Amino acid sequence: MSIITLLTDFGVSSPYVAQIKGVLATRRPESHVIDLTHSVPPQNIQAAAITLGDLAPWFPAGAVHVAVVDPGVGSDRRILAAHVGDWYFVLPDNGLISPLADRFAVKSVVALDRREFWLSPVSNTFHGRDVMAPVAAAIASGIPLEELGESVDDWHRVHIPRPRVMSKSIQGEVICVDSFGNLITNISADDVHGDDVFRVGDRVVNGLVRSYSDRTAGQMVALIGSSGRLEFAVVDGNAAVQLGAGQGTAVEVDLVGETQQVGDLQ
Amino acid sequence: MSIITLLTDFGVSSPYVAQIKGVLATRRPESHVIDLTHSVPPQNIQAAAITLGDLAPWFPAGAVHVAVVDPGVGSDRRILAAHVGDWYFVLPDNGLISPLADRFAVKSVVALDRREFWLSPVSNTFHGRDVMAPVAAAIASGIPLEELGESVDDWHRVHIPRPRVMSKSIQGEVICVDSFGNLITNISADDVHGDDVFRVGDRVVNGLVRSYSDRTAGQMVALIGSSGRLEFAVVDGNAAVQLGAGQGTAVEVDLVGETQQVGDLQ
Amino acid sequence: MSIITLLTDFGVSSPYVAQIKGVLATRRPESHVIDLTHSVPPQNIQAAAITLGDLAPWFPAGAVHVAVVDPGVGSDRRILAAHVGDWYFVLPDNGLISPLADRFAVKSVVALDRREFWLSPVSNTFHGRDVMAPVAAAIASGIPLEELGESVDDWHRVHIPRPRVMSKSIQGEVICVDSFGNLITNISADDVHGDDVFRVGDRVVNGLVRSYSDRTAGQMVALIGSSGRLEFAVVDGNAAVQLGAGQGTAVEVDLVGETQQVGDLQ
Repeated sequence: MSIITLLTDFGVSSPYVAQIKGVLATRRPESHVIDLTHSVPPQNIQAAAITLGDLAPWFPAGAVHVAVVDPGVGSDRRILAAHVGDWYFVLPDNGLISPLADRFAVKSVVALDRREFWLSPVSNTFHGRDVMAPVAAAIASGIPLEELGESVDDWHRVHIPRPRVMSKSIQGEVICVDSFGNLITNISADDVHGDDVFRVGDRVVNGLVRSYSDRTAGQMVALIGSSGRLEFAVVDGNAAVQLGAGQGTAVEVDLVGETQQVGDLQ
Repeated sequence: MSIITLLTDFGVSSPYVAQIKGVLATRRPESHVIDLTHSVPPQNIQAAAITLGDLAPWFPAGAVHVAVVDPGVGSDRRILAAHVGDWYFVLPDNGLISPLADRFAVKSVVALDRREFWLSPVSNTFHGRDVMAPVAAAIASGIPLEELGESVDDWHRVHIPRPRVMSKSIQGEVICVDSFGNLITNISADDVHGDDVFRVGDRVVNGLVRSYSDRTAGQMVALIGSSGRLEFAVVDGNAAVQLGAGQGTAVEVDLVGETQQVGDLQ
Repeated sequence: MSIITLLTDFGVSSPYVAQIKGVLATRRPESHVIDLTHSVPPQNIQAAAITLGDLAPWFPAGAVHVAVVDPGVGSDRRILAAHVGDWYFVLPDNGLISPLADRFAVKSVVALDRREFWLSPVSNTFHGRDVMAPVAAAIASGIPLEELGESVDDWHRVHIPRPRVMSKSIQGEVICVDSFGNLITNISADDVHGDDVFRVGDRVVNGLVRSYSDRTAGQMVALIGSSGRLEFAVVDGNAAVQLGAGQGTAVEVDLVGETQQVGDLQ
């Protein structure tokens, strides 16, 4: 029994995910392959790193997590296999591993270079299928990381800003703007209440809504999005443009609320 | 071999589904986990109950169906484990089980209270992950329902209106308005023809279209939606607003048609 | 261990996929069921055939591929089971198998007629669930194709236009218009560069964009879409209408580029 998970920015309709699953089924047919998400905002390493950090620890020891958010594919960026906490990871050396390496013991990191474990030929544009998938299958089969590449300790780290959670307020920031202009913050659903006061830029929003459709067009709303994080949106509009906000814009929550945001996050 | 299925209103892009799958993979790694759907209209118990009733019976005896449409999470609503027909169910006590209990033998229903089977700690906001998933894994492992909670018979029932299917017409109603204002009815695709006459409120629609794009903006159409049910929509508009229609609005079909709606429902 | 894959045009939110999976879980619970894609443009046999041809060969020998894009359901079109290359296929006799039959050895094709392997009763509208799924389970269980139907050699072929790839240019065509009016071509991502020159109808586009959001409303763009193929789109507009283009419209690429479209296709 082995568990292999996939996190990508390919979108839920992409046939590329199936190509990866075909390689895994060929190399390791008895594995159970589980989708973490394929809806990471395209090319957004910071958002992908946070999501991977949120999801990976829910899986059993020995699970192999493959993360394909890889703007550098085709360049000379390295691909890593890592043993961090109780799990294995196969991902580009672009910082995706940072939040996990900050929280859990880093037991081993190698830069993949043993091409006998890869598909042949390797395309220029899809290392998720040609390199990461067969290496994940090898790890699931029990191959030690040391046989897959050279040990490295200079792997890339990205700064993932953490919110300051205090007794009466939280100070965080926008970590990602999605394709609709919605502002996704680094503040977790677990830390806020449905009737808190939310500030972003010079705007104040009282309380969370459950979904965009709870307000009329043009209104600014705060909600818990599918990311599991506090988000700001303008109904039928573009919050990033209207506020002149973007990655790094400060966000503050006044923790005046008492009610859990029942039903927003299940 | 055990089968566990998931039905939620989280949306297809949600990472919360992966957290549930992580718990299942940890507690019961050999189970096969199958998505029923994650596209139930948010918080809509009636729509979720109907969909669960439509899908669950297609699975083999012993399958464990987990349904997380749970507007009451964080309140004192109970969570049930039930043995109905040949299947097991883990779901909030909000009526989701009603259509199945109406059709199949109710063999056992317990209200979960044995916390040793749950995750610890249990969050206030995500009982699908913290309570329902580990209990589903326990049932799949062969734990009898009676060890998971106290037997109850006062579980919540919701009224699911059924259509009257007659020889020349069907009388049904709108059971759900989705976030686009489309009107989803309780009339099944199996009972109508592509060239029937469809009435909702004071509007008459002749024949089904295959998709919204078959008509121009502003036109009212009838179609078989992804729910497998008759739906009414206004192309690029909001049918609920334009008709002043909503849950409970009467719908009628004149069964004058002779052709199957070939290809609409495959 | 057996692998069964599914390709449909049901959409990612459809509950019909779950009904097929329920039948497979009932008839062949130990199989691993993998989604190829459920986002084929509705009823588009040519697009489905190309996608199936792209994806099926990534799977291990013996995999059973089920393709349910079936505008003729309810008519007297036949359903085929085929052994082509190293894989098995269950699909309507509407040409879906053509690209694979062109590339790989056709070892056996039968027209299904042994109803003892089907569900009973069989609906008029959903042969994917009632015929194809149980037959796929039978094949995965080792039943020879010859026991499932009569051998045929007059199965339907569709012409899938192939691009002419030359040293300095590619001549292809539009093979599909999606519901947004985007023009999907038969030119593969593997054959073009990020800074090539793209022509469709009388329009010239210099270079690929990574996503629609890289340009402003009304602009014509070329990009690699989720199909893995060159596509043309008008941002917030309808390319098919604006260009008067459709299936068969000529497309040409001047291969002047040198850079891979890094990150567009991972």
